[in-house]
Amino acid sequence: MDRERISALLERFARGDVSREEFVEAFAVAPFVELGDARVDTHRALRAGFPEVVLGLGKTADQLARIARTLAAAGGNVLVTRVSPEVAAELRAELPELEILATPRLAILRQAPVPPRGRGPIAVVCAGTSDVPVAEEAAAVAELFGNKVERVYDAGVAGLHRLLASLDVLRRASVVIAIAGMEGALASVVGGLVSAPVIAVPTSVGYGASLGGVTALLAMLNSCASNVTVVNIDNGFGAAYVASLINRA
Amino acid sequence: MDRERISALLERFARGDVSREEFVEAFAVAPFVELGDARVDTHRALRAGFPEVVLGLGKTADQLARIARTLAAAGGNVLVTRVSPEVAAELRAELPELEILATPRLAILRQAPVPPRGRGPIAVVCAGTSDVPVAEEAAAVAELFGNKVERVYDAGVAGLHRLLASLDVLRRASVVIAIAGMEGALASVVGGLVSAPVIAVPTSVGYGASLGGVTALLAMLNSCASNVTVVNIDNGFGAAYVASLINRA
Amino acid sequence: MDRERISALLERFARGDVSREEFVEAFAVAPFVELGDARVDTHRALRAGFPEVVLGLGKTADQLARIARTLAAAGGNVLVTRVSPEVAAELRAELPELEILATPRLAILRQAPVPPRGRGPIAVVCAGTSDVPVAEEAAAVAELFGNKVERVYDAGVAGLHRLLASLDVLRRASVVIAIAGMEGALASVVGGLVSAPVIAVPTSVGYGASLGGVTALLAMLNSCASNVTVVNIDNGFGAAYVASLINRA
Amino acid sequence: MDRERISALLERFARGDVSREEFVEAFAVAPFVELGDARVDTHRALRAGFPEVVLGLGKTADQLARIARTLAAAGGNVLVTRVSPEVAAELRAELPELEILATPRLAILRQAPVPPRGRGPIAVVCAGTSDVPVAEEAAAVAELFGNKVERVYDAGVAGLHRLLASLDVLRRASVVIAIAGMEGALASVVGGLVSAPVIAVPTSVGYGASLGGVTALLAMLNSCASNVTVVNIDNGFGAAYVASLINRA
Amino acid sequence: MDRERISALLERFARGDVSREEFVEAFAVAPFVELGDARVDTHRALRAGFPEVVLGLGKTADQLARIARTLAAAGGNVLVTRVSPEVAAELRAELPELEILATPRLAILRQAPVPPRGRGPIAVVCAGTSDVPVAEEAAAVAELFGNKVERVYDAGVAGLHRLLASLDVLRRASVVIAIAGMEGALASVVGGLVSAPVIAVPTSVGYGASLGGVTALLAMLNSCASNVTVVNIDNGFGAAYVASLINRA
Amino acid sequence: MDRERISALLERFARGDVSREEFVEAFAVAPFVELGDARVDTHRALRAGFPEVVLGLGKTADQLARIARTLAAAGGNVLVTRVSPEVAAELRAELPELEILATPRLAILRQAPVPPRGRGPIAVVCAGTSDVPVAEEAAAVAELFGNKVERVYDAGVAGLHRLLASLDVLRRASVVIAIAGMEGALASVVGGLVSAPVIAVPTSVGYGASLGGVTALLAMLNSCASNVTVVNIDNGFGAAYVASLINRA
Amino acid sequence: MDRERISALLERFARGDVSREEFVEAFAVAPFVELGDARVDTHRALRAGFPEVVLGLGKTADQLARIARTLAAAGGNVLVTRVSPEVAAELRAELPELEILATPRLAILRQAPVPPRGRGPIAVVCAGTSDVPVAEEAAAVAELFGNKVERVYDAGVAGLHRLLASLDVLRRASVVIAIAGMEGALASVVGGLVSAPVIAVPTSVGYGASLGGVTALLAMLNSCASNVTVVNIDNGFGAAYVASLINRA
Amino acid sequence: MDRERISALLERFARGDVSREEFVEAFAVAPFVELGDARVDTHRALRAGFPEVVLGLGKTADQLARIARTLAAAGGNVLVTRVSPEVAAELRAELPELEILATPRLAILRQAPVPPRGRGPIAVVCAGTSDVPVAEEAAAVAELFGNKVERVYDAGVAGLHRLLASLDVLRRASVVIAIAGMEGALASVVGGLVSAPVIAVPTSVGYGASLGGVTALLAMLNSCASNVTVVNIDNGFGAAYVASLINRA
Repeated sequence: MDRERISALLERFARGDVSREEFVEAFAVAPFVELGDARVDTHRALRAGFPEVVLGLGKTADQLARIARTLAAAGGNVLVTRVSPEVAAELRAELPELEILATPRLAILRQAPVPPRGRGPIAVVCAGTSDVPVAEEAAAVAELFGNKVERVYDAGVAGLHRLLASLDVLRRASVVIAIAGMEGALASVVGGLVSAPVIAVPTSVGYGASLGGVTALLAMLNSCASNVTVVNIDNGFGAAYVASLINRA
Repeated sequence: MDRERISALLERFARGDVSREEFVEAFAVAPFVELGDARVDTHRALRAGFPEVVLGLGKTADQLARIARTLAAAGGNVLVTRVSPEVAAELRAELPELEILATPRLAILRQAPVPPRGRGPIAVVCAGTSDVPVAEEAAAVAELFGNKVERVYDAGVAGLHRLLASLDVLRRASVVIAIAGMEGALASVVGGLVSAPVIAVPTSVGYGASLGGVTALLAMLNSCASNVTVVNIDNGFGAAYVASLINRA
Repeated sequence: MDRERISALLERFARGDVSREEFVEAFAVAPFVELGDARVDTHRALRAGFPEVVLGLGKTADQLARIARTLAAAGGNVLVTRVSPEVAAELRAELPELEILATPRLAILRQAPVPPRGRGPIAVVCAGTSDVPVAEEAAAVAELFGNKVERVYDAGVAGLHRLLASLDVLRRASVVIAIAGMEGALASVVGGLVSAPVIAVPTSVGYGASLGGVTALLAMLNSCASNVTVVNIDNGFGAAYVASLINRA
Repeated sequence: MDRERISALLERFARGDVSREEFVEAFAVAPFVELGDARVDTHRALRAGFPEVVLGLGKTADQLARIARTLAAAGGNVLVTRVSPEVAAELRAELPELEILATPRLAILRQAPVPPRGRGPIAVVCAGTSDVPVAEEAAAVAELFGNKVERVYDAGVAGLHRLLASLDVLRRASVVIAIAGMEGALASVVGGLVSAPVIAVPTSVGYGASLGGVTALLAMLNSCASNVTVVNIDNGFGAAYVASLINRA
Repeated sequence: MDRERISALLERFARGDVSREEFVEAFAVAPFVELGDARVDTHRALRAGFPEVVLGLGKTADQLARIARTLAAAGGNVLVTRVSPEVAAELRAELPELEILATPRLAILRQAPVPPRGRGPIAVVCAGTSDVPVAEEAAAVAELFGNKVERVYDAGVAGLHRLLASLDVLRRASVVIAIAGMEGALASVVGGLVSAPVIAVPTSVGYGASLGGVTALLAMLNSCASNVTVVNIDNGFGAAYVASLINRA
Repeated sequence: MDRERISALLERFARGDVSREEFVEAFAVAPFVELGDARVDTHRALRAGFPEVVLGLGKTADQLARIARTLAAAGGNVLVTRVSPEVAAELRAELPELEILATPRLAILRQAPVPPRGRGPIAVVCAGTSDVPVAEEAAAVAELFGNKVERVYDAGVAGLHRLLASLDVLRRASVVIAIAGMEGALASVVGGLVSAPVIAVPTSVGYGASLGGVTALLAMLNSCASNVTVVNIDNGFGAAYVASLINRA
Repeated sequence: MDRERISALLERFARGDVSREEFVEAFAVAPFVELGDARVDTHRALRAGFPEVVLGLGKTADQLARIARTLAAAGGNVLVTRVSPEVAAELRAELPELEILATPRLAILRQAPVPPRGRGPIAVVCAGTSDVPVAEEAAAVAELFGNKVERVYDAGVAGLHRLLASLDVLRRASVVIAIAGMEGALASVVGGLVSAPVIAVPTSVGYGASLGGVTALLAMLNSCASNVTVVNIDNGFGAAYVASLINRA
Repeated sequence: MDRERISALLERFARGDVSREEFVEAFAVAPFVELGDARVDTHRALRAGFPEVVLGLGKTADQLARIARTLAAAGGNVLVTRVSPEVAAELRAELPELEILATPRLAILRQAPVPPRGRGPIAVVCAGTSDVPVAEEAAAVAELFGNKVERVYDAGVAGLHRLLASLDVLRRASVVIAIAGMEGALASVVGGLVSAPVIAVPTSVGYGASLGGVTALLAMLNSCASNVTVVNIDNGFGAAYVASLINRA
């Protein structure tokens, strides 16, 4: 799609190495493998240096296994997110080499070492013990992407001393991922304490007027700290992905 | 209810073939069969040339069987939508000739061949693998209504090359059904790529701020492409029905 | 972007009529005129046979005048929607040849006759007198796109006889546009009365629990009639655009 | 609490039949039986001529049995609403004389005949087969309150002839209860066809943008027919209660 | 539309007094006057014995004047609701005989005395002084429909004595209209104090979490008193209309 | 309504000082002055030792003047809240002795000194300069109710040092009123820093996803600090009223 | 964090009892025990004289047991809220000395007697039998915090006599906790009857338009009684906590 | 607050240069200037190398002038955002040296040159002409923070060629700010085209179901592209601030 690729194709076409039909075809053919119900991108990893990632939500174990195998053929690591315990068990039966992380609901197919990368550590801070599954999704993904991760868990703003006790950790991070349900105030407080970018992850932890995480989401979007951006409710993966991009040299 | 029917009745009344009482009665009697908890229209198919359709949602297997049998008496095909696996099993026990399509949750009672119809193919494009059940509902229904269907699955906008690779398919369709959950952006992008009418189907695929499909629904209603109209969340059937109407010569 | 254009370019490139640089450039150059704050498509009309359309909402009179002039250079008709009275007055000062339709808030620059087209008339039916501005937007746009339009106004379902009195008009239309605020029931009733596709337009007419049109919108999306699709609140233009596409031979 | 009761007490007090302490006590003592977690009104029936009613929702079988027994001691009929199948089974074990109506989830303890009352029949009309449980709650309750009930089921507005076929029934009713999920248009159409008061009951039947009945509720509140009032989603009981009050001579 | 009218027509047709064309035409012709942007029903008053009513919301003074004159031609009274001060001034200029009620925003064209009717008085009770405009709309309309009205204003539940002081008035009413904004608790308390039907009208009075009346609306729909039904926010007219229907002998 | 009053009345009735009619009347007569569109409580101040308070929102200057005069007749202080600049000007014209506080939109009629009361100071802390009008409403009302008030303004959590600098003030308060718009995080942070009760007031300050204060409201209701309760958006008066009750010895 | 602690540390530092490193360390070290996924505050009880409280929601039995044991080491009482029956069973297996209260879903580890405290009784009043679990959470917690509690259950406003019968109880309370689902009107009525602070707890009891407690929540926030503040839906614990703070001498 | 500052203070305290009182005081004194209704941070610029920023929303010209002057005293640049035309005029009267940017509603007090910084350009892409004010806020702020900015305006996804024509610009940016109203699909499409972090800004551009920007916000939060984070509706400033942080070497 980009100019370089068009130029290279043209040159080969001009040299007669590529026919007109081939040219048009090559241009149109997308770099994916067609599986019928899925179109699997097979070289995203090469571009970004990251493992291949599959969103597990709403996919059957059979679909995930087929997609993971297709991606694994390229030789890199493969990460499946949002793997429920039931699907994880089925997946393991089909792909015994799969590594399952229960708390963050991740499945990993490791085929290559992960080289360390990033300008500094990524701090993952969460407000309560109930937020730990989302925090672990963020932390484990960030680690799998080569980052050094520092965890600060159960540090909600109602006990400010628990958060301030880890101020050093927060201030030396090059990116902070702030995770909280209920009123989501952690994002604003952390945002005010550090000068690095803060990625806020609202969680569905809470009850009643927490509205399944919508309250924390809205609160984080309205943060009075200017260095805060927000991802979807419970989206620990997305936060880790963007944090990894930011942390790249 | 319509003028032709009144005229014909009148003529017969004028000739004395029909008494005043019969006339009033005929006029009032609706063309349905009263089943107590259901009033089954028995000649809609004749009018539109389509199979009879029963919305399965919220109906018991017993109710569905009675309705399907009543409709089948007219000799045409009968389609039941939104048939859960449990209800499907019960239905099969009562009506063994029923054909069950598991993924799109359809049950079909085929009694007549479906003649091909339509000015061109209907393209069914969906954003992700998780949207396939809704896409298959649309595709299977459109086929049962006599249309040629072309499927483009897992072609979400974040990997634009996967969508553009099927541009030919989209552009030669006389109607496009665009199906997506999450942010529903597929409808706008497809809308901009084709000049045919696009029927957008939001799906309940997603989590957190997807609000069970409401986000995709709202996004599709606000599409910046002018050729997009929208049906209810997960309403693959409705999209196929309207697409079939549009595609009729 | 499409194969034909690539093929043609290639052929000229193969013949040496086009250099590699020109080829890449030509491919990349988008068919629009850059105005700084607007990128004006200049040949959409050629593709679809419709006038050029500019959404007036949120644009200044100065911006609209610049865009309209750019589009008018191609010789076709230009339609500006959502033109407030204030902007209309300013626009007329800059483009005296502009025709202003006050009720539907449209501005038209007519440079070419509109050839009649469409398989049949488009019926525009609205529920109440307060819905007329939206209905007129739909009707006027449909006419400008070459369709024959039949208007049925103030035919809300609480006085069913007012609607049934126009049943003939509704039944002979090839597409029906049903416009209603408040509870939006008109769409379902009309949908049940005709076998043509019905495009439902919710309006912001109402008060209290009408929630600025959201109630009518939701009701229409849940229509128990299967031939109904929906566009955004007050979007008479969009309904007319899609109806015109459907009505094309 | 009311003047008559105060006057009577005063007279007896003035005659010395009642001491000052007794007077104050009598005034303060509320006419209910204290069961700890429930305060059971024991003479509401006397006032209104209706059976005692207990809302079953959220109460355990044990609580319902205790409340029903307390109410039954007064000799009248007792009606329990919203009885789930599980609770119904438990209740029957404790109170074998209880009559269970499965579809409308009612339990009735009949101790006295229900005298017929009301100026005319109450028509209960519902849009679809899935709405029947709510419709039956309304119909059975209205009958238990002494009204003649006429049922018109599966008469949604998309098949207007099914509704119009029962126009006679609707027009001779002294009150109409209109029950519908999805877009709730039935209320407006029925409201326009009759001159009696119409009580609209939205149901939670539907999916996606029906929002659990909120769409039908909003639509009914915005009805363009002036004779429509609305009760809570799925509240067949409430509709029957008010219809019975209206129907009293 | 109804059987009697069909029978009569038939008899005349059978006698040759009416041709087939005339018969069909007569049947189809609806009893309204076509004004282009309005279809005015001209004999609703005859049917119900009520004045003709026009909803002023969203209509221009010119439209209202044309509609009112058309209705007035039948000789009965005409009521226009939701007349803003600006429109009222314009209307008076065109129809000097119009009587304007400023607080309830009503305009009345009196051509006939209003005979008293109704089984008993209608009580109109409102919670606060700010609710008076809606209360007056209800009260004035109910009076115009022939009912005796008793007003109980500024009787919110936070000062229960102010409400209880008017208990007599409430209890002798055959229908009660309960009007409140903010938390809307008045409806439940009044519902528990009387055995007549209570029509609850939420108002848009309040701020912040009152959400323009939606809070009061939701509260009233969830009333723990079974004799409460609800109309749209600020819909004093609708409440009075239904109360009048209920109050008819 | 209470037993003492009934007993006293009874005694006088028993002695013949009060007739039966007078007794019933006395019981029913509520302690308010009927103004037609308002029922003014005239001795609430005596009960609670607070000034009389009138909610100005939605009342005309004429209504407010009549109510204020009626209340002033008892000799105490009168406070009118939510007085817009326009109404304030009109009110001053009618009641020149009125003291107007522009920022908190209060009008005060001082007739008696306010004795100091309360176990300790009430701290009023707000997040931003834009929250000051609501904060001043709370502070001024609390002062008028006899409390010592300490103000901590513009102390949002994104600059935690600005809040911590006033930690002393917060910790010595017997009640804290925490006022914030946007994400409302201030309430949770303050709640964690003090052991006194915290009354949180969300404000409508913000834009976009602040939803007019709903976001701050929801966040405060979900506070992870257990000592936080919440009042309506912008309800500085209510917070001060409850704080005064709590602060009473 | 507070001045006294800094002063004391400084004095010891000045005397040489504490090194600079120790000083900084001491200052930074927060008074909590790090459990990895939880940071347990170990001396909150000392500060407030209350038992330690753990929110059970979203925590595993294993996590709760570890946290409870850590807190119990300080010798005070430990309270765990929101303990589901399943978790309660697991917890009992690990901590047999735990006392389980099933209705309010509380687990208590009693190690010390609870001294009575508070200026007066706390009244806990709820609207219906279904609200009892939340009411018992409030009542049991308030008792565990040393308060005398008076319960008034099933006293909803539709049967005002049931509420008024307990007026004495309400009026002698120093704080009232008012608990209701559905329309939540109890808070306003109770607020108007007492002059003490009222803490309103909306419950998720209801169906349809009760929206899981949001309706009651909104209604309570809009209470026309000025002495009402609100906590989250079903938050009986929070209400009892604040009531205990208010009730402290 | 941080260890270094405590250590330094301690050292001076240990040397006797600082008394105990001074130490405690120094620790508590926050680095801001108290203006009564504002607490102005005076050295945030030093920390981050950015100009001082004041949110103009909800502040009077007088407040803004006082705050700006206080900040300007430190010698750096001062930026005021969300300055309405009216406030801008007043501000200019008080601070004539202020530079006003009308389209992005910014006011700038330039006292120092802005050194170029950042690893690469920041691309600001917006969907439509109506989004330009928000886009200009982002672009102008990013420039003021020293970044090179590349603008791609009016490049909505319905005309994909207009976006793809600027693919080079997007791909060479180190951060992309994607701005769109209506359905907000631009963020997902851009996210899929680049591998840099994308900060999505929903705008309030649109009508009807765009819900003032909430639809675009929700859509962006649900983006199927993993490199997208989101800020509040219309928050061009916040996007530029975070983009600047990310772009710092």
